[in-house]
Amino acid sequence: MNAKPTTEMLDEAIREYGVDAYLRFDDSASVDHRYVTGFEAGDAFGYLRYDGESILLVAPLEKGRAREESNADTVRSTGEFVADDVRDDVEAEADVLAAFLEEYDITDVGVPQDFDLYYAERLEEAGVTVRTLGSVVMNSRIRKTEQEIESLQAAQTATEQSMEYAAKILTQSDVVDGTLHYEGEVLTADRLRAVLREFLEGHDCRLDRAIVACGTASADPHESGSGPLRADQPIILDIFPQHSSGYWGDMTRTFVRGTPTPALEAMYRATQDAFDAALDVLSGGAGVTGSAVHNAVCDVYEEAGYPTIRQGDVEEGFLHSTGHAIGLELHEPPRLVDGTGELAAGTVLTVEPGLYDPGVGGVRIEDMVVVTNDGYQNLNDYNTDWVL
Amino acid sequence: MNAKPTTEMLDEAIREYGVDAYLRFDDSASVDHRYVTGFEAGDAFGYLRYDGESILLVAPLEKGRAREESNADTVRSTGEFVADDVRDDVEAEADVLAAFLEEYDITDVGVPQDFDLYYAERLEEAGVTVRTLGSVVMNSRIRKTEQEIESLQAAQTATEQSMEYAAKILTQSDVVDGTLHYEGEVLTADRLRAVLREFLEGHDCRLDRAIVACGTASADPHESGSGPLRADQPIILDIFPQHSSGYWGDMTRTFVRGTPTPALEAMYRATQDAFDAALDVLSGGAGVTGSAVHNAVCDVYEEAGYPTIRQGDVEEGFLHSTGHAIGLELHEPPRLVDGTGELAAGTVLTVEPGLYDPGVGGVRIEDMVVVTNDGYQNLNDYNTDWVL
Repeated sequence: MNAKPTTEMLDEAIREYGVDAYLRFDDSASVDHRYVTGFEAGDAFGYLRYDGESILLVAPLEKGRAREESNADTVRSTGEFVADDVRDDVEAEADVLAAFLEEYDITDVGVPQDFDLYYAERLEEAGVTVRTLGSVVMNSRIRKTEQEIESLQAAQTATEQSMEYAAKILTQSDVVDGTLHYEGEVLTADRLRAVLREFLEGHDCRLDRAIVACGTASADPHESGSGPLRADQPIILDIFPQHSSGYWGDMTRTFVRGTPTPALEAMYRATQDAFDAALDVLSGGAGVTGSAVHNAVCDVYEEAGYPTIRQGDVEEGFLHSTGHAIGLELHEPPRLVDGTGELAAGTVLTVEPGLYDPGVGGVRIEDMVVVTNDGYQNLNDYNTDWVL
Repeated sequence: MNAKPTTEMLDEAIREYGVDAYLRFDDSASVDHRYVTGFEAGDAFGYLRYDGESILLVAPLEKGRAREESNADTVRSTGEFVADDVRDDVEAEADVLAAFLEEYDITDVGVPQDFDLYYAERLEEAGVTVRTLGSVVMNSRIRKTEQEIESLQAAQTATEQSMEYAAKILTQSDVVDGTLHYEGEVLTADRLRAVLREFLEGHDCRLDRAIVACGTASADPHESGSGPLRADQPIILDIFPQHSSGYWGDMTRTFVRGTPTPALEAMYRATQDAFDAALDVLSGGAGVTGSAVHNAVCDVYEEAGYPTIRQGDVEEGFLHSTGHAIGLELHEPPRLVDGTGELAAGTVLTVEPGLYDPGVGGVRIEDMVVVTNDGYQNLNDYNTDWVL
């Protein structure tokens, strides 16, 4: 399902914008940079697409590794332009970039949107026109290859297994004075998170953060949660580990051990309906808009009497987007929000409607799906039973 | 030893550059952004320093958390400027930033050097002049507070203990056909790394990467190393974990189990001399230049007949800077390179001379020191015995 290779899209953008070349300068914490160069380094390095060639510009000590590990046609060293180690010295780096472009007679260069303004200022001083070319690299990452989808499936399968494991722990816990106890000790959010972390490590994944939010904490969609887990209260588990392949899992379920209040029950029912409505729109496959998916969710919620983000600066109700693309980053464009255009086949998205009410708590349901030509493929296979 | 608070330095920079305000827009993967706002969020958020006040601009769903956790005087929501979730949509984000600045009548704004060029382009279109103000926030991070130094000491103590533990494992290994065996199994780089990782986790640190490079792999200063560890070969252990406080440890030793070749022995001796020469310069305390420290190392190496980076684009010899500042980031400015000016009291630096020869292998020695008014304080207390 993959679109054109990134280099081809860069060459097209160079022609379209009428620039001489495309320049990146970043470290591999930038996923775009890692994706386009195939190279990882802690310090910033350059990438130039010029005349159909990919040229890497690295510190002298990285030259050997860059030749072996990167996908560049040519590897150059900053040492060719300045004697000494320029890493972390932005002024010296700007000088090197200017000398590097000068050598190729480049006077009009396209750069990514997150190109550092300082380098642009300095290149302009050196007589080079610098313009952003839109999200060329990110756009080339939207449609996932078969191999990328396999990695996402592996990540999400492990995530789902950890969810199942967590649900079992909640089910097997004893309720003592309204607080969950597992294997004789109080079950806190931190303890459950540690159990999930260990489980996922054993499944080729790393879990840095996870939301285990109980009671009123669950009403804040980004609250990580702490303290003892309690009966008769919503417990939101939002688990998002990174698989060893670099791809992310992301899945949410809301559980109640015991009996939910009627208000919470109504919120959960509306969220199940909203979730079904989103998938119903996605069953149209490639070409449906992200906007349509999101608005279907808002419609369900508003009809059920809950405020939604499309009504403005709301503080409760449905407060966020319906979902986001996912891949080498946990959050990638496109998002499922009002205004998002047609979804391409091969896009992998989370679908995660939720409701939040400070007086009641929060609920959210999240699966991960691949948009296909004639519908979608759900990378999850997990029910939405929630009362344990 | 701390310098002025960051907000005071920002107010000074605003006056000095004659701009109306200082704007940041980034996510908390940017350490500067986290440092200046006291806030962590996976999605980008804004920070405005205007008229002596710190104003945060966050997604609607982050408002509550931002009010509680950040150090801002005022928290505003993107929802006040646009209905819907703008996260990851750079065009919508640019619109929000323009509307945000317009509300404060800001037409000339200072930004950090790594401000995204795209936002600058869009703000300029909206009639706002955008200029970088130098590394104001990073400069405010150079001189560490007492508390920061305590955290770095905690990180480095754990790192040193892990080094001691690794040396013990190398010493207790059996040599079978030239390969190290520990507790009956081949000791590989990956296995030793896993042992270090577990040890450091038990000491409040997280080890994502570590160099365990043996033989010719050690001749590439950034090679992580793999495969069995061998006797009579250099083994570089470069251990750099992140402590739970957020601060980093960083320490290197080179070991040989068995007998080093005379060529390697000469390299090690020169490196010990270079290391001592660096510390000798640092004993001058605050006011000595980073350049002087680095050049002392280069002098020792060149006198001993080894090429150094100050001679240009060398491929063997001393290939990198003499060290780097360290704190919330593993590599911070200033670096110990030619041209670096006076070091301020409270700066925490690694000192790490090393030599690399593809035919022989590599050696490196690294400690972490604090520059004080009348000398330096070594955060390590570990010998440089290397033949085990």
